[in-house]
Amino acid sequence: MAFDFDLFVIGCGSGGMRAVKFAKKLYKLPKVGTCDMPFSQLSVDGRSIMDKNTVGGIGGTCVLRGCVPKKYFWYASHLGHELENAKGYGWDIEVKGFNWQTLITKKRAETERLHKVQAEKRIPNAGVETFTGRGKLLDAHTIQIGAPANKTVTAKTILIATGTTPSVIDIPGKEYCISSDHILELEKQPKKLAILGAGYIACEFACMFAVWGTETHLIYRKDLPLRGFDEDCRKFLARQMEVSDGVKLHKETLPVRVEKQENGLYTVYTKTLAGVEEALTDCDEVLMAAGRHANVTDLGLENAGVEMSGNKVKVDEFSKTTCDNIYAIGDVTDRMQLTPVAIQEACAFLSTVFGEKKYAVDYDSVASAVFTQPPMGTCGLTEEAAVAKYPNVDVIIDGAGGGWQAEYFKFTESKEELLVKVLINVDNDKVLGFHIVGKDAGEIMQGFGAAFKCGITKQQLFDTVAIHPTIAEELVCLPGIDMLAPERQYRDHKLVAQ
Amino acid sequence: MAFDFDLFVIGCGSGGMRAVKFAKKLYKLPKVGTCDMPFSQLSVDGRSIMDKNTVGGIGGTCVLRGCVPKKYFWYASHLGHELENAKGYGWDIEVKGFNWQTLITKKRAETERLHKVQAEKRIPNAGVETFTGRGKLLDAHTIQIGAPANKTVTAKTILIATGTTPSVIDIPGKEYCISSDHILELEKQPKKLAILGAGYIACEFACMFAVWGTETHLIYRKDLPLRGFDEDCRKFLARQMEVSDGVKLHKETLPVRVEKQENGLYTVYTKTLAGVEEALTDCDEVLMAAGRHANVTDLGLENAGVEMSGNKVKVDEFSKTTCDNIYAIGDVTDRMQLTPVAIQEACAFLSTVFGEKKYAVDYDSVASAVFTQPPMGTCGLTEEAAVAKYPNVDVIIDGAGGGWQAEYFKFTESKEELLVKVLINVDNDKVLGFHIVGKDAGEIMQGFGAAFKCGITKQQLFDTVAIHPTIAEELVCLPGIDMLAPERQYRDHKLVAQ
Repeated sequence: MAFDFDLFVIGCGSGGMRAVKFAKKLYKLPKVGTCDMPFSQLSVDGRSIMDKNTVGGIGGTCVLRGCVPKKYFWYASHLGHELENAKGYGWDIEVKGFNWQTLITKKRAETERLHKVQAEKRIPNAGVETFTGRGKLLDAHTIQIGAPANKTVTAKTILIATGTTPSVIDIPGKEYCISSDHILELEKQPKKLAILGAGYIACEFACMFAVWGTETHLIYRKDLPLRGFDEDCRKFLARQMEVSDGVKLHKETLPVRVEKQENGLYTVYTKTLAGVEEALTDCDEVLMAAGRHANVTDLGLENAGVEMSGNKVKVDEFSKTTCDNIYAIGDVTDRMQLTPVAIQEACAFLSTVFGEKKYAVDYDSVASAVFTQPPMGTCGLTEEAAVAKYPNVDVIIDGAGGGWQAEYFKFTESKEELLVKVLINVDNDKVLGFHIVGKDAGEIMQGFGAAFKCGITKQQLFDTVAIHPTIAEELVCLPGIDMLAPERQYRDHKLVAQ
Repeated sequence: MAFDFDLFVIGCGSGGMRAVKFAKKLYKLPKVGTCDMPFSQLSVDGRSIMDKNTVGGIGGTCVLRGCVPKKYFWYASHLGHELENAKGYGWDIEVKGFNWQTLITKKRAETERLHKVQAEKRIPNAGVETFTGRGKLLDAHTIQIGAPANKTVTAKTILIATGTTPSVIDIPGKEYCISSDHILELEKQPKKLAILGAGYIACEFACMFAVWGTETHLIYRKDLPLRGFDEDCRKFLARQMEVSDGVKLHKETLPVRVEKQENGLYTVYTKTLAGVEEALTDCDEVLMAAGRHANVTDLGLENAGVEMSGNKVKVDEFSKTTCDNIYAIGDVTDRMQLTPVAIQEACAFLSTVFGEKKYAVDYDSVASAVFTQPPMGTCGLTEEAAVAKYPNVDVIIDGAGGGWQAEYFKFTESKEELLVKVLINVDNDKVLGFHIVGKDAGEIMQGFGAAFKCGITKQQLFDTVAIHPTIAEELVCLPGIDMLAPERQYRDHKLVAQ
């Protein structure tokens, strides 16, 4: 049977885009196509998190309404701290305020530019056929592309890369809440912002808005934000969010309902786990940041026999779904929701299916960053996971007690501190995890991610000569400091030195 | 024979300090002593580079008049760029000027504090006996400590760690010139500054002062600054220094003489290699930055049979001098002049002499940074050295053509660009060198230094998942980009693709 396409990719975000471009350039597939929904700055058709997900655009979440614009926001916020630091270093400046409109206008122009570059130049120039419209599987080889394309195509191999959309917490008044898409598209800066949730997206926006002068409240169920991250880092960052950024933390608190006030502002009614009821009034915006769910609505998975695992598409280690010629990569699958992981999955999929080498992504050595202020960089296991998995773990740590500032801050009024932490498997000397919370943590962690990928040992880390003076050097100097005064050591899951 | 000390260290900078502290704490030597000259912010007794080197102080060059205060200066200058960037991100600020006095006052207080913490608390508390005065060898086991201590002691093992002092270019008017010590101690910011030399110290100060508004001239013999570094990086940085910082470069130019004008300012007379004579008038200061020479004056090396290699102390791979019980580490030796290298040499010396393991420092994998603006981070070989040493080298590079800006700068007026470069030995897939010039390069390079220490391959680098969006990710993404369009490849020392 002759197909219209050798490979057709439904959804053209970071993962899908890598797949189509490399399929043409590296693997020389003659006919490659992709479709995505019509472009929009938002991924929904209205101002509520409840509105329908009928738009999107080539570029995807990361580029259009995720990592990239978020990082611009982060820079804008980080620079707020830097202005204060500059005064400490002798700069005579007057800070008159922050102009939200400047940021949002540039953000819009840049996301539009990034979309256009891909949609109108790079992907067509690479010889990839693009369609605008929602893709739906009619069977294992047929894709119906909705409006405006209104077309049906066939493909030998299909890749699903439709990503995710913010999830909704089912409380009364949820329709008044906005998503992380909307927060990047507000017409004006809120004076008072409530954020429901404390995952990394929630925490990142909390820090940003607080620095811009928005009264920012973070409402979350657990005793610490950032569930899943290292507990020392979580404690440290929670304190930093309060003292360095001015975020108001409402821990062990559940949102009960959201009401619209007569003046157009919102009240968030909450209840603590201990049963105390409170009302947070006069919020300009209420951001729901309660995770994301796979974009599989109207995707026709059932028509092709593609099964789900929970609320994500089920895949094997080579990204194959339960249908033999259909694969899925990126956030739509139940794996790791990170842009560079989706890109690696795209490369691994191509190599496995069209190349000479079967290739599975290694999820255990993925380094990542959380762009709070200060940011956090992490690679490998948390202490909790390391101690649970290995009998003999050394925890080498500095800064957990608080009060340790990078030299940079000595000349400033900043309250920003530093935490560095390295976990060692004593039985084979291998590093199990790197963690750092502090200035430039995201930039710092990347190279350590490469070292982790090489299976770096404590001895190799100790033998790495420091770059002085940097903040990053603290991670290579820790094993030496450890020889003198380890802050904590575990043996047989028990604390033996502190 | 009974000695006063098991170990005596002459010179208590970063290397010496590490040696005495770890000798006590890790190797439990009962009697450890050290001496250094009286503390001063400067290492000479006057305002000229020609003045005598009779002061110093526990802490050494790095802490008191090198890396540490230099980094404070760098931050102060870097923040000048950040103020402009902040405007691009929506901050409404008025920059009224830069107050040199604020910076210099804080610098003095901090270097004094750092000296005191070590001299009066940490070293004495570690049980190490300290003396203030210049140390001189009388024989292989006897040290005379000059004023104010005026004492003679004996030691079983002696470690020389006296460091270096700025060198003088022998031209008429050299007495009017200042050193890198002085530039960190000026009472006021020069309006016009001439810098003779273009090593990393020269370039760092050039960028800083230019950003503060000083008219800054860099006068150097070669066609590019930063001899010894990768040539692509040198070209790139030379252009950045001009367009991004406003440094005025006088390449292929020699200083002929310096004259003092009647108004107290200075004129630097120069001659280009092509024979063109010029005069740079009205300089407030003339900084000589022509390398550094070992502090061996009056050290009595000849009394103990310690030989020199050129103008540095000769040592074997375990830091042993030509006298069996005398060792030398740090800048005073003819190796690598970097603080963390001196510290590693101290650790290696202790392990070799007092520990269970002979341990030699690996100089081939030392990562380092140059704190220009943008900064440069480097580890391993330059392209020139790699191609000379190995028959098959791949050069994977981005940004060398100019015009490539990190996303951060898209919202700003900044002219700052990015260069990333990875060298691969094709025959074994190993990375031979990492180079990056751009924002946060120093912080970024540290982890790649750790990966380099692990012998990272191109495949491992490619398998390292990116942290997005960071600048650092460009280094792990390069090998993937290379699959599509390598900017340059060498085979058999010949360029085969561009």
